[in-house]
Amino acid sequence: MKNHNKLSRRDFIKTVSIIPPSLSIGMIMKQTQNIKEKARIGVVGVGNRGHFLVDLLTQCSDVEVLAIADIKKEHAERTKLLCEQRQKFSPEIYTNGETDFENLVKRDDIDCVLCATSWEWHTPVAISSMKAGKIAALEVPAAITLKECWKLIETSEKQKQPCFMLENVCYFKEPLTILRMIREGCFGEVVHAEGGYQHDCRFLLADEKGQLNWRGKGIIDRIGNTYPTHPIGPISQWLNINRGDRFTSLYSVSTPPFGIHEYFVKKYGPEHELSRMKVKHGDINTTLLQTFLGKTVTLYHDTSLPRPYDSIFRVQGTKGIYFGSLQKIYLEDVSPQKDAWEDFEPYTKKYAHPIWSAYESAGGSTAGHGLGDFITVRELVRAIRTGQTSLPDVYDSATWSAIIELSEQSASAGGKKVDFPDFTNGRWKTNQPIPIIQLPQQWLSSC
Amino acid sequence: MKNHNKLSRRDFIKTVSIIPPSLSIGMIMKQTQNIKEKARIGVVGVGNRGHFLVDLLTQCSDVEVLAIADIKKEHAERTKLLCEQRQKFSPEIYTNGETDFENLVKRDDIDCVLCATSWEWHTPVAISSMKAGKIAALEVPAAITLKECWKLIETSEKQKQPCFMLENVCYFKEPLTILRMIREGCFGEVVHAEGGYQHDCRFLLADEKGQLNWRGKGIIDRIGNTYPTHPIGPISQWLNINRGDRFTSLYSVSTPPFGIHEYFVKKYGPEHELSRMKVKHGDINTTLLQTFLGKTVTLYHDTSLPRPYDSIFRVQGTKGIYFGSLQKIYLEDVSPQKDAWEDFEPYTKKYAHPIWSAYESAGGSTAGHGLGDFITVRELVRAIRTGQTSLPDVYDSATWSAIIELSEQSASAGGKKVDFPDFTNGRWKTNQPIPIIQLPQQWLSSC
Repeated sequence: MKNHNKLSRRDFIKTVSIIPPSLSIGMIMKQTQNIKEKARIGVVGVGNRGHFLVDLLTQCSDVEVLAIADIKKEHAERTKLLCEQRQKFSPEIYTNGETDFENLVKRDDIDCVLCATSWEWHTPVAISSMKAGKIAALEVPAAITLKECWKLIETSEKQKQPCFMLENVCYFKEPLTILRMIREGCFGEVVHAEGGYQHDCRFLLADEKGQLNWRGKGIIDRIGNTYPTHPIGPISQWLNINRGDRFTSLYSVSTPPFGIHEYFVKKYGPEHELSRMKVKHGDINTTLLQTFLGKTVTLYHDTSLPRPYDSIFRVQGTKGIYFGSLQKIYLEDVSPQKDAWEDFEPYTKKYAHPIWSAYESAGGSTAGHGLGDFITVRELVRAIRTGQTSLPDVYDSATWSAIIELSEQSASAGGKKVDFPDFTNGRWKTNQPIPIIQLPQQWLSSC
Repeated sequence: MKNHNKLSRRDFIKTVSIIPPSLSIGMIMKQTQNIKEKARIGVVGVGNRGHFLVDLLTQCSDVEVLAIADIKKEHAERTKLLCEQRQKFSPEIYTNGETDFENLVKRDDIDCVLCATSWEWHTPVAISSMKAGKIAALEVPAAITLKECWKLIETSEKQKQPCFMLENVCYFKEPLTILRMIREGCFGEVVHAEGGYQHDCRFLLADEKGQLNWRGKGIIDRIGNTYPTHPIGPISQWLNINRGDRFTSLYSVSTPPFGIHEYFVKKYGPEHELSRMKVKHGDINTTLLQTFLGKTVTLYHDTSLPRPYDSIFRVQGTKGIYFGSLQKIYLEDVSPQKDAWEDFEPYTKKYAHPIWSAYESAGGSTAGHGLGDFITVRELVRAIRTGQTSLPDVYDSATWSAIIELSEQSASAGGKKVDFPDFTNGRWKTNQPIPIIQLPQQWLSSC
């Protein structure tokens, strides 16, 4: 890797341990010594997302997918076939109902269970996996209730097993660039951030006949921000949440479901069950978060109105502002014209995050979200093989996922200030910010 | 005016009475009968803004500026000179201290007192003017406390004198276009809006030696959204606030003053009084409003960090979204590409507001904000001469200005949900939305 970066040596902490150093030394395990040759993985849930992740994993020579569980046999068979094409052996499949994954997690030939089921199964699968001595890797969100958030942490600590959430947006090009720029002080003191899951997902709620699927049920039966982790993940890393600062309060409001209702009427007719159904979920949820240091975050969930996709990703500090909606930036005394935006694109080169540059040079798969998904998967493989990774740990996963129930508590009361739990139990005061990781060359050559 | 518009005849209510029709018929006065040949105006406060408004007013042949008050004699003299160049007579000046305006408002040759003083004098001048039987016209904000808001309403109702706030952003091209598009149903049911006074105003706080001016004192001694009317004015009109819906609650949070402090240290040195002063006002205030119908508004105040100007002006409905930051729009089944933005510019032609088109054709002054300020001034002149106008009435002026103290109450408590008063006393339920006004030709020819 070229050393054109301005990062100081101190910033180049190469890796981050799976278990935070603030936990007892006995829990810091597996790292550095005994690098595993292969990451041996069992996968639970191979619908769209799970199959895609297996596709990425099986492109890596240091990965073995040994077992697959899915409630739909045809899904399991499809993914098994893909594995057979990529690997020299065939994975075993578990398709005997909703709890057959319990048999998968017990296998003694896997290190990690990756879960990409519907949302309500993420935590149960993770708990079983950790109890069976496996690393748990979860698609987003890690949990949908506060109780689940705490359960993940308790189990991880008790079993001394890490639990990661595969929040891929943390590895997108812009969020990584912004993270490095913040660390290098480009924005000064960061004061406010804004992000949103703003994506017209009406088509994902029900099938052509108007039968709600798990996603539709999970969204329209609830109120609040039901899918917060994509925007809040990168923002939390920018603001050093759980690592020098923490969320202290939340306030959330949802509009009525004007848009969902109009959509159902238009698509299925006014007499259809969905058109007559009382929908809890509003069209737009706006959530305001405050941190211990007084910083603020505005978070949107906006999935049932016609709109172009937009994550917003505004970050604003004492020296400048980045506004993702515009793909523009303004840095005082740096940008050529006073009080005028300039294109962000050149900054993605100048401040390219080393992990992005590394996988770009190494020719990582750009399927999905232009390297972002591939880096996520590689960080999981690195966790399994070396015990080191930059993936969101169980505390971050819980913090980001907790917004689902906290915003529900607030929005269902028509807006109410709620306290944000400290999932780190005070360790946010001493935890170090996630490092700007730089991968060793031998790691890159092995993928 | 060309009739290329799709507005129905019913929408073409030509004017709006000064006093809402829901008040007693005795209060509906001056309208239609007895059109005055001249609007006779006294002006209180001719600093930057006041002088500029007189500049616009005296370009109109149907306006006479008869009196000027200012605490600074040199300001009064400067504006007097301008009037003398434009008019055949000289205005009288009142420069004998802070309360000399009391003598101005008593004159029997003026119809209206226009106030462009520092903020804390807006309400006192308006009260005096209405008590003296004059129309009150106020620069923004109309009031800075809730008590002042109520006082304006009480006085206006008791004295049967209208009170207008000269919220010029309501007459900018984009907000007017959006208003018409909303009325024509382009956005379907409007669900959410967002706006901000996002403008780096650090340079306005103090002089070169570091002496705070009235604006600096007014901003940094307070917390909350200290300048809400520019964004909330148009948004309130879009959402029919006080005219079918109303604001019911508000929640507001402010960040610490990282940016103001850094600015003072950089500009005046770390030992300067300002750098050591405890600043109440945060860098970014975020305020969340809810309406009776469940709609939501996000409002920013962001004036002490380096940033390009941006009013945001997002409006989102069941059929599409406009996003002013981008100057883009997306309308379902209308925009050429699914889920993709298109330029807003062609819509400003197709859906040009008739009042904008009219003054554009008539060659109105574009000084200030491209016709916006001129239209504001002309709507004041129309109020004085015909008793009809589209200017924000006393209820709207109070509602928009009330956000100053309500956000202070909320933000000073670190975020607290507060109830929004109903300044209309229930009349919001029957009040009609402000009309899409179309001016009679004879009016345009007289300006």
